Amino acid sequence: MADYTQIKLDIADGIATLTLHRPDKMNAFTRTMMDEMIDAIDVTDSDDSVRAVIVTGHGDRAFCAGADLTPEGSSGNIFARHDPVEDLSDERVRDGGGRLVLRLFNSQKPLIGACNGVAVGVGATMQLPFDIRLASETARFGFVFARRGITPEACSSWFLPRLVGMQTALEWCMTGRIFSAEEALERGLVRSLHAQEYLMPAAIELAREIADNTSAVSVAMTRAMLWRLSATDHPMMAHRIDSRSIYRLGKSADSKEGVASFLEKRQPDYPDTVSSDMPDFYPWWDEPEYR
Amino acid sequence: MADYTQIKLDIADGIATLTLHRPDKMNAFTRTMMDEMIDAIDVTDSDDSVRAVIVTGHGDRAFCAGADLTPEGSSGNIFARHDPVEDLSDERVRDGGGRLVLRLFNSQKPLIGACNGVAVGVGATMQLPFDIRLASETARFGFVFARRGITPEACSSWFLPRLVGMQTALEWCMTGRIFSAEEALERGLVRSLHAQEYLMPAAIELAREIADNTSAVSVAMTRAMLWRLSATDHPMMAHRIDSRSIYRLGKSADSKEGVASFLEKRQPDYPDTVSSDMPDFYPWWDEPEYR
Amino acid sequence: MADYTQIKLDIADGIATLTLHRPDKMNAFTRTMMDEMIDAIDVTDSDDSVRAVIVTGHGDRAFCAGADLTPEGSSGNIFARHDPVEDLSDERVRDGGGRLVLRLFNSQKPLIGACNGVAVGVGATMQLPFDIRLASETARFGFVFARRGITPEACSSWFLPRLVGMQTALEWCMTGRIFSAEEALERGLVRSLHAQEYLMPAAIELAREIADNTSAVSVAMTRAMLWRLSATDHPMMAHRIDSRSIYRLGKSADSKEGVASFLEKRQPDYPDTVSSDMPDFYPWWDEPEYR
Repeated sequence: MADYTQIKLDIADGIATLTLHRPDKMNAFTRTMMDEMIDAIDVTDSDDSVRAVIVTGHGDRAFCAGADLTPEGSSGNIFARHDPVEDLSDERVRDGGGRLVLRLFNSQKPLIGACNGVAVGVGATMQLPFDIRLASETARFGFVFARRGITPEACSSWFLPRLVGMQTALEWCMTGRIFSAEEALERGLVRSLHAQEYLMPAAIELAREIADNTSAVSVAMTRAMLWRLSATDHPMMAHRIDSRSIYRLGKSADSKEGVASFLEKRQPDYPDTVSSDMPDFYPWWDEPEYR
Repeated sequence: MADYTQIKLDIADGIATLTLHRPDKMNAFTRTMMDEMIDAIDVTDSDDSVRAVIVTGHGDRAFCAGADLTPEGSSGNIFARHDPVEDLSDERVRDGGGRLVLRLFNSQKPLIGACNGVAVGVGATMQLPFDIRLASETARFGFVFARRGITPEACSSWFLPRLVGMQTALEWCMTGRIFSAEEALERGLVRSLHAQEYLMPAAIELAREIADNTSAVSVAMTRAMLWRLSATDHPMMAHRIDSRSIYRLGKSADSKEGVASFLEKRQPDYPDTVSSDMPDFYPWWDEPEYR
Repeated sequence: MADYTQIKLDIADGIATLTLHRPDKMNAFTRTMMDEMIDAIDVTDSDDSVRAVIVTGHGDRAFCAGADLTPEGSSGNIFARHDPVEDLSDERVRDGGGRLVLRLFNSQKPLIGACNGVAVGVGATMQLPFDIRLASETARFGFVFARRGITPEACSSWFLPRLVGMQTALEWCMTGRIFSAEEALERGLVRSLHAQEYLMPAAIELAREIADNTSAVSVAMTRAMLWRLSATDHPMMAHRIDSRSIYRLGKSADSKEGVASFLEKRQPDYPDTVSSDMPDFYPWWDEPEYR
C-alpha cells in the first residue's frame, strides 16, 4: 500500500474505506490529496478483493472544506500555477477537481459517499460521481463558487443536474449558499441521513449488500453502462451494448452461479473477477481527451 | 386479431388492454411473449380507434417474474441461442427485452402500465418505456441482474435514470435488491399506488382522460417529441421540430376543433387520425440500426 | 428604456422586474409581447447593474393565459401567418414561443419566475428556461396543447423533462390537463409556493441573495455552463470548459475579492462586469441555427 500523507486507505472484508485525512485542515483539498485519491482508486480497481469503496472524511467536523487556500496548502494545490499558460488546451490548465472526478467516473468499483460534515467547493463537487451518497445529519453542503468569484468545477455542471434536476442545480450554484443535510436529502443529493455514529455503519451495510450478493463483473459493467449509456441520445445506443453484455455474460461462470444460487436459495459465490473476466468488448468507448 | 398464446389483447371504447398471460408461470417472459407483444403494439398503432394502451399482468401475484429460466420456457426464450455467434453485431445477439422496448419506444399510442404484482428483471425493465406507470400496493420491483451474474438489459441503462435520476438508478441496479411499491413511488418510478381492485379502474380513468379530451395526432406527436427531443444536446433541436409541428397542426382540422370546442365549452370530436393525418415531416428522424 | 405596450420593465437596486401586462387579456401572449420580452432581455443583459431578472404577470388572476386566440390578439400573434410557406426551414415557420425561449436560454442574468396565477400553453412553456420558478398558491398550470389539436412548443419537449423527469412530463403533456400549484411543487416544476402577497417579496429575496453575494461574471458563466454542459454526453466536455474557467477566473479581480471578503468575513464588492470581464474563451459554443 502506498504511503499516503493526506488520505488513508483501509481494505477489509471486501470493502475499501478511503478517508480524507488532514486533521487540522478540515480535510481541505490539495494537489497531493488529488494525487493520492487517484492512486487509491487505481488500487481499489486493481484489487479484486475490493467490492465497494466508501469515501469519507476524518473527524466529526468536515468531509472536506474545499480547496486549501492557505499559503501552506496552496504550495501544492490546484491554484498554484506559477507559469502563466496562454494555450488553454495545455494540460497544466486542467482543473484538479476534474482530474479526480474523471478518475472516479471510471472506477470499476461502486463508490459510496459517507459525508460526515462540512462539504463545500470541491468537497461537494468531488462527491457527485459517487454512485450513492449518505450523510450525517450534521453535514452541510455548498456549491460556493459564485461567492468566490469563480465557477463550478470538477465537471459538476455535468453531474449535478443528473442528480437533482436543473432547477435545484441552478439555485445551489447561482446563490452559492450553504445548505443543510435535510435540504440535500429532500432535493435528492443524498440518499439517506444518519446520526453521526451510525453513518459509517450504514455505509458499510450498503457496501455489504453489494459485496455479498452481486457479481463483481456485473457491478463493474452496470456502473459503466448506467453512467455512460444514459447520456446518449437514443436507447439503441444502450441496446447495442446491453445485447452484447447479456450475450457474453449469459455464458459466464458468474451467470451460472447467479442462477444456480437463486434456484437453490443460497448465497452466491461468484468465481469471475474484474481483472480477468470483463467481457471482450469492454471498454466499448473511446475516452475523450482534454483539449 | 392474432391468436396469441402468452398475452391477451382486448380493445374496447378506445382503450387497448394488453395482458401478460401465463397463469402458471407468473407471466414470465419468453421469446414468444416478446413476439406477441411486438405484434400487439403493431395492432394498437394501426387501429385508429385505440387512443391508449394499458399493459398489465394476469392475476394478483405477478406482473412479470422476469425471463423464464425453466427448461420449458427456455426452449423459446431469449437465452436459447444454440449457435455460438462470434460477431457481436449479428442480429442474433440482440437482447429480446431490448427488441421489445425499442418497439414500445416507437409506439404512437400512450402506454400506461398497471403493475399488479411482482416485476423483476425484464418484468421491471420492460415497463420503463411506458409513459406512465401505476402500481398496486402489493407490487414489488427488482433490477436483479447483478444478483444473477448478468447486467441490466432492455435499454434500461438509458431509460431508468430519466425516470428516477442517477443515484436511485445506480443503487437499484448495483444492489439488485427487491423493493416495495412504496419505494417505487417515493423515488418516482411509479406515478401512483392503488389497492389491487382499484388498479385497473385507475389506469382506465387515466386512459379515458386522454381518449376523451385530446387529439390522437397531437398525442402521437407529443410522445415522439418528448422522448426524442429531450435527449438532444440543445433546445434548438426541439425548436426545429416543434416549429414545424405548430405550423402544420395549426392549420389542421384537429386544431380547429380543439379551439372551437374550447371556446364553446364542449367535449371535442377530433376528425384527424394517426393513420392518415400525421404531419408531412413525420417521422423526422433516422432510426439507428443495431450494429 | 423602450416604450413597451404589453410588458413593463422596472429596474431597481440591481433587480429587473419584467411584468407581462395586458390587464384585460389575462396577459395572453402575442407577437408584440414576444418582441418586447426579447428586447427586455437584451436590456437586462447589457445593463451591468442588473443582477437578476424576475418575470411575473400583472394582476392576481393570470401569469399568462397562453397565446391570444382572439381576432384582436391574432392580428399580431404567432398564429397569424397569412402567406402559406412550403419550405419548413423558412424563418417564418419558427414558433414564437420558441424564439422567446431560446433568447431566455441565452440570458446572462438569472431568471426567476414569480407565477402569480393561471399559466397555460405558452404561459407555462415560457417559464421552463427560467432558472428558478416560484408560484402563488393560487397558480395553475397546463400544458394544454393536446387538447387544442396542436403539440407542445417553445422547446418544452427539451426543457420539461429536465425539470420534472420523463414520467411527469409525459403525463402533463399527453393529458393536457390543468393542474394545481401544489402538484407543480410536488413534481418539481416550481421551487416554492407563497401566498399571493408574499410571492414578489420571496422572489425579490432570492434575487437579493444572488445580487448581494455573488460575482456577476461567475453567475453568467455558471448559468451557461449548467444549461449547456449538462446536455453533453461525457463529463470531459464539462472538464474542458470548467478547467479554462477556473484557470482564467482564478486570476480575476472578482476571485481575489471573493477570497478576500470570505477570509475577512465581510460582504463582497465585486469589480468585474459581464460587459467587460467575461473570460476570453466565452462563448465557447457555436449557436445552432434554425433550419
